[in-house]
Amino acid sequence: MTTDQNPIASLSEIRALRKSLPGIDEVSRDAALARNAILTKPAGALGDLEDLAIFMAGWQGKAMPTVNHPRTAVFAGNHGVAALGVSAFPAEVTAQMVQNFQVGGAAVNQLVADLDGDLMVHEMALDQPTKDFTKQPAMSDEECAQAMSYGMMAVEPGIDLLMLGEMGIANTTSAAAIYHALYGGDAEDWTGPGTGVQGDALTNKINVVREGVALHRDAVVDGLDVLARLGGQEIAGIAGAILAAQMARVPVVLDGYICCAAAACLHAWAPESIDHCLAGHLSVEGAHADVLTRLGKKPILQLGMRLGEGSGATLAAQMVRSACNLHRGMSTFEDAGVSESVH
Amino acid sequence: MTTDQNPIASLSEIRALRKSLPGIDEVSRDAALARNAILTKPAGALGDLEDLAIFMAGWQGKAMPTVNHPRTAVFAGNHGVAALGVSAFPAEVTAQMVQNFQVGGAAVNQLVADLDGDLMVHEMALDQPTKDFTKQPAMSDEECAQAMSYGMMAVEPGIDLLMLGEMGIANTTSAAAIYHALYGGDAEDWTGPGTGVQGDALTNKINVVREGVALHRDAVVDGLDVLARLGGQEIAGIAGAILAAQMARVPVVLDGYICCAAAACLHAWAPESIDHCLAGHLSVEGAHADVLTRLGKKPILQLGMRLGEGSGATLAAQMVRSACNLHRGMSTFEDAGVSESVH
Repeated sequence: MTTDQNPIASLSEIRALRKSLPGIDEVSRDAALARNAILTKPAGALGDLEDLAIFMAGWQGKAMPTVNHPRTAVFAGNHGVAALGVSAFPAEVTAQMVQNFQVGGAAVNQLVADLDGDLMVHEMALDQPTKDFTKQPAMSDEECAQAMSYGMMAVEPGIDLLMLGEMGIANTTSAAAIYHALYGGDAEDWTGPGTGVQGDALTNKINVVREGVALHRDAVVDGLDVLARLGGQEIAGIAGAILAAQMARVPVVLDGYICCAAAACLHAWAPESIDHCLAGHLSVEGAHADVLTRLGKKPILQLGMRLGEGSGATLAAQMVRSACNLHRGMSTFEDAGVSESVH
Repeated sequence: MTTDQNPIASLSEIRALRKSLPGIDEVSRDAALARNAILTKPAGALGDLEDLAIFMAGWQGKAMPTVNHPRTAVFAGNHGVAALGVSAFPAEVTAQMVQNFQVGGAAVNQLVADLDGDLMVHEMALDQPTKDFTKQPAMSDEECAQAMSYGMMAVEPGIDLLMLGEMGIANTTSAAAIYHALYGGDAEDWTGPGTGVQGDALTNKINVVREGVALHRDAVVDGLDVLARLGGQEIAGIAGAILAAQMARVPVVLDGYICCAAAACLHAWAPESIDHCLAGHLSVEGAHADVLTRLGKKPILQLGMRLGEGSGATLAAQMVRSACNLHRGMSTFEDAGVSESVH
């Protein structure tokens, strides 16, 4: 992880960015709405695809939205709590899967190819896991800010859609703790099987989540504090990428339970900071449906996935691309010489 | 419509095909199941995509399934009942939209391009609508068989996935009548707004459906009789294409409410005749969710679409392609040197 070139070194500097966040471009949004109304189809017949195209137009600031240069950014990090036996896989799998991403053998590689996109894999100091959050903050304020500023580098000029994903053994534990801290309830409401823990191992995982949240409860002021104390470097990286994307007017497709934990921290801090984000899919991990409701997001896909690594977001991006291609490519009633509704 | 080269001239000849319908290839299916279990992901983490790849392997008869040559076949036909005021659009729109397909301006054109597929548009004697089914059968036995045999030509060597769609002003009325005849209930249970009828026009549409079904009820023996008496040439063409695809081991992605009416007629006649079919999406037209439950199909997409013309099927085919590409392209744990679950 190299952050030397980036000046952001504290969460207060991140918080100061809030005033710079743009909203949608209403002129482009309205132009897309007007075009959508005259395309050769019954009104509303393309359903959610119409909403997606209009959303893209508004955020990209162009009436004819595109998905020509989609990027999937996968952040990988290791977690102190992995040593507590919360995962079905050993911690070395994080690095092994990064290697798998680099040679093209993982799920996300195939999905990036189907999208004609590019894949960036961001290794977050895999040999320096976060601290065990049942004992101390997972990250200091500065470490979290640095991970966020590293994540901001995922957004480069020319990218017109950004999919975010993660890899990190034990990070469903971190995500569960984030949701429990943000949304209350009981630890077991937010703790799922992850890669496949059950029985006593799942009970242990729930206890880890409960203990961690209890330890930090009184020290938390906003969502960024939750991110630092209970999150992971990859989750903070995703949060940084989301912020940078909004500043650059690049729409984002969120992945599943862990990726959305980054969005949830931002949303708790500044709700408008995820207005440019789409929910790629409904994961079957944990209480993702509840999370999406709280974030005000409707998932594009519901395919029973729970893999992470940006797979659901990258798959869903094909739908976003088609929505944009429909909007740009379809004829209008007038151009096609098709009679309009008699009503 | 040219069927001279095809010898099938009666529904009894269609019925005789039932004994020739193949099932899945269990060897290929089992090989895909075995491979799926060792790919670099937690067991089951790709959800429905895993089931799709295994389904494709079984039906294509190859352990490594492909979507390299997908075809979308759109059948267009006109309906006698269009004269009864059941649609929001005038009947000439069927031919106008066929023209739009041919110049590339329709929704399905953009979606075929996103899939790198080919589009075949089958015009079914647009100047010879079916008869008004409230007065007599929409098609004779022979006309229905000819339309089905014409539809069979959509399946050609090399195609590895077939998406089916339709265009035909008034054909949601025909589909509603088919479902009401097959599944009972009341006409209004099956009659939706189509391209946008409401109020008195919708009441009129419901009455047309009710009258048509009542007229033919006593003459119907099986699903093919329902298809002939209440269907349309494009719906019969789709039914023929489904049968031909099964005989050629080409998996099919069904579109929405009208396309599924063709499948429902086949299913009522011979349930196994649609075993090779996937439901592309859940349409918001009519009672599509109920139809899919009766057909035993789970929709791939739920995007609030109701456009027809094969749009939902062709969009969903991107998901089927990704499922196959994941299955073929991902590394195994052993090849990638990734540690397996400790449980």
